[in-house]
Amino acid sequence: MSEYDVLGIGNAIVDVLVHADEDVHEREGRIKGSMQLIHAEVANALYERLPPGVEISGGSAGNTMAGIASLGGRGAYFGKVATDQLGQVFAHDMRASGITFQSEPSTSGMSTGRCFILVTPDAQRTMNTYLGAGLELAPADIKPDIVAHAQITYMEGYLWDPPLAKEAFLTAARLAHEAGQRVSLTLSDSFCVERHRMEFLDLVEHHVDILLANEHEIISLYQTDSFEDALEKVRGKCEVTALTRSAKGSVIVSGDEVHIIGAEPVERVVDTTGAGDLYAAGFLFGLTHGYALAEAGRIGAIAAAEVISHFGARPETSLSELVASAIGEKARR
Amino acid sequence: MSEYDVLGIGNAIVDVLVHADEDVHEREGRIKGSMQLIHAEVANALYERLPPGVEISGGSAGNTMAGIASLGGRGAYFGKVATDQLGQVFAHDMRASGITFQSEPSTSGMSTGRCFILVTPDAQRTMNTYLGAGLELAPADIKPDIVAHAQITYMEGYLWDPPLAKEAFLTAARLAHEAGQRVSLTLSDSFCVERHRMEFLDLVEHHVDILLANEHEIISLYQTDSFEDALEKVRGKCEVTALTRSAKGSVIVSGDEVHIIGAEPVERVVDTTGAGDLYAAGFLFGLTHGYALAEAGRIGAIAAAEVISHFGARPETSLSELVASAIGEKARR
Repeated sequence: MSEYDVLGIGNAIVDVLVHADEDVHEREGRIKGSMQLIHAEVANALYERLPPGVEISGGSAGNTMAGIASLGGRGAYFGKVATDQLGQVFAHDMRASGITFQSEPSTSGMSTGRCFILVTPDAQRTMNTYLGAGLELAPADIKPDIVAHAQITYMEGYLWDPPLAKEAFLTAARLAHEAGQRVSLTLSDSFCVERHRMEFLDLVEHHVDILLANEHEIISLYQTDSFEDALEKVRGKCEVTALTRSAKGSVIVSGDEVHIIGAEPVERVVDTTGAGDLYAAGFLFGLTHGYALAEAGRIGAIAAAEVISHFGARPETSLSELVASAIGEKARR
Repeated sequence: MSEYDVLGIGNAIVDVLVHADEDVHEREGRIKGSMQLIHAEVANALYERLPPGVEISGGSAGNTMAGIASLGGRGAYFGKVATDQLGQVFAHDMRASGITFQSEPSTSGMSTGRCFILVTPDAQRTMNTYLGAGLELAPADIKPDIVAHAQITYMEGYLWDPPLAKEAFLTAARLAHEAGQRVSLTLSDSFCVERHRMEFLDLVEHHVDILLANEHEIISLYQTDSFEDALEKVRGKCEVTALTRSAKGSVIVSGDEVHIIGAEPVERVVDTTGAGDLYAAGFLFGLTHGYALAEAGRIGAIAAAEVISHFGARPETSLSELVASAIGEKARR
C-alpha cells in the first residue's frame, strides 16, 4: 500500500480575492474567466486599484490537495514559497489540513506568489497571477521517495510557465512511472494550453495516465470546433480522461467506457474559483479509494459544488461528510 | 463642515479566522467570547495547532472604519502596522475602502499584529491577539490636523493595553475637544474593562462624549448585578451612551431620552466577530449624518446584522444600499 493517495505539484500561491463589478474586465484589459501571469510591478499597481480583499491559500494543485485532505485522503505537496508571512500562511494551511509539505522555501528574495482574483456578481473569476517564489520550483524539489510512494502524482499545466518547473514535472513523471505509479495532469487554462500546445500534446500522448481538463481547454488542445470532436481526439490517448463542462457536468472516458455525470445542484453559485481543482480532488480521491469511474466523477462534482457555493477556492465544510451523506460507502467496488 | 465624519484609532490587526469545534476553549484554556492578549511565541505555537484559516484585515476600530466607509461616510484611521506583507494588506484594505490611512509603519522589527479568531459552530468567536507593531502606537502618531477635522474621534478601549497608546488616546481626546469636536469610546471587552476599570471610569466621566459598550462590559465597568443598574449608573455620565445586548438589540440613553432598538433579523448567524464594531459604525454614521438617535441605533443594528451573517468582521455587501432599502433617506431629521 502506498503511503500517499495523491502527490500534488504546483505553483504555491496565496489568493487575494476581491468582489469586482462587471466593468472590471474592460477597465483592466482582462478576459473574463482566464488566468494571466503578471510581473511584480503590474501586480503592485493592480493591487492599488483593487477594493479590500480576503487572503486565502490557493494555487490550483494546492486547492486540490486541500480537497483530498478534506475527503479523508492522504496527500503530499511540492511547491515553492518564500520565507515571508504569506509563505508561512500557505505552509500552515497545507500542513494544518493534513498534507505533507516539506518543500524548502526560497531564499532568493522573491516573495510568495499571489493571485489577485476578481470575482464578478455572476460568480465568474478572473485571475492575475504573480508567481514570485513559485518561479523557482526545480527538479531538486522533487523528492523521489515521496513520488515513489504516491499512487498518483498530479501536476498543473500551469507548471509549464515557470522555466524549471516543467523539468521538475518531467522528473516527477519519470520517477512515478519507474515506481509503478500513475501520473495525472490538469490542462489548467485554455490560454495556458495555447502557450504550450505542442508540448502538452506530447505530454498527453506519452507521459500522462489520467488527464483532467475543462471543455475549453480540451477544445484548445486539439483545436477542434466542438467538444464532441475533442472528446474523440483524446479518447485512447490516456488511461482515463475526465472533462468538466461547468453546469453541464462532466464526461469521463476510459477505453470503451464513457460516463456522463451531472453537476451537483447548488443553491447559489457564489464564486467559481477552484471548481476544477476540487473536481480533480474528488475524482482522484475516488480513483485511489476503489470507487468506480462514474462514482469518482460524482465525488468530483460534490466537491466542486461545495467550493463554488462560497467565496474562496478551499473547502469550508468537511467533504468526507458531504460524500458520506450523498453516496455513502456502498458505491465502492 | 468637517473633512471627516469619524476618525478611528485602534490596534491595527489582521485576523486569522478558523472554524473550531466546541472543545477548543477547554483544550486551549480560553474563555468563549473573550479577547486574550498573547505573546509572539504563544501566537506561533497556537497557530501551529489551528486548522487552515482565512486572513482578513481586522482590528476593532479598523472594522468600524470599514463599516463607516461602506455606509458612505468619510473617515480616517490611526494605527500601527509593520512594513511586512500583512501590514501591506491592512493598509491596502483600509485605503481601498476609502479611509485615509497615513500612519507611519513601524520599523522596529515587530511584525504586524494578528488576531487568531476561533469561530465555533454556534457562531461565537474567541480572540487571541498578538499586538506586534500595534504596541508602538504613540502620541507622535496622532496627527492634530486630522483630529481637528473629524466630527468624532472614536477609540478602542483595547488601546489601554499597549503602553503608549493610552497616551496617544488622551492626546487625541484633548485635541478633539480643543477643536470643538466629540470623543467616542468603546469599552471593547469585559476583561479589558477589568484590567483598566479605574481609568475607564475616569475616562467615561471626564473625556468621553459618546460611549459604546455591550451589556457585559457596562456591567463590569460599574460592577453591578444587572444591566438596568448599570444603565442607571452610566446615565448622564456621557452625552450619549449606546449599549448593545446581542439578540436583545440595543438601548440608547441621552439625557432624559431612552430608546430601545430591536436587533435586525438575520437568516443565519454565521460568525459574531465584528458585531459590536459594525454597530458602532452604523451608530456613529447616523450621528454624523443628521439621523435621530433611534435611527442611528437602527443603522447600527443593520450593519451588525450584515457582518454576523458571514465569516469575518468586515462588511461584504454595501451597507449604504442596505440602509437605503431598510429606512431610506426619510429618517434624517
